[in-house]
Amino acid sequence: MKAIVNVRLKNGVLDPQGRAIAEALRGLGFYEAKDARVGKMIEIELDETDPNRGALRAREMAAKLLANPVIESWTIEIAA
Amino acid sequence: MKAIVNVRLKNGVLDPQGRAIAEALRGLGFYEAKDARVGKMIEIELDETDPNRGALRAREMAAKLLANPVIESWTIEIAA
Repeated sequence: MKAIVNVRLKNGVLDPQGRAIAEALRGLGFYEAKDARVGKMIEIELDETDPNRGALRAREMAAKLLANPVIESWTIEIAA
Repeated sequence: MKAIVNVRLKNGVLDPQGRAIAEALRGLGFYEAKDARVGKMIEIELDETDPNRGALRAREMAAKLLANPVIESWTIEIAA
């Protein structure tokens, strides 16, 4: 099964990369782009058949390695 | 409204960062992590009220700036 961990910066944490993207979009004529924030999406191929256990383990992976809990939050999705 | 552009590497494109993550996960005891692939998630705050038009514009943004169409594919989500 596949676990998808979406990691994003917490609200209030400055995101210079996102700001640069929003400015570049406006420079290209996308004037409706008010702001942008950039996150990571990590797709993990799991050797696991129980979705509940897969989600639990993916949650541990996020907390231990994939995200920085001080400035980032994350969500987990399990796909077949 | 918010547009979320998920950018991922196409199948077949080597992802050394993802491979390093999978190895690090196994090193931490997550032996079920067979492989990992890393993508970007870009959340764009749009000054736009029509979701269809928002999706269309987000699709153009992805093709013009946010992704490299040679090696990456993308999906668009529209949120309120």
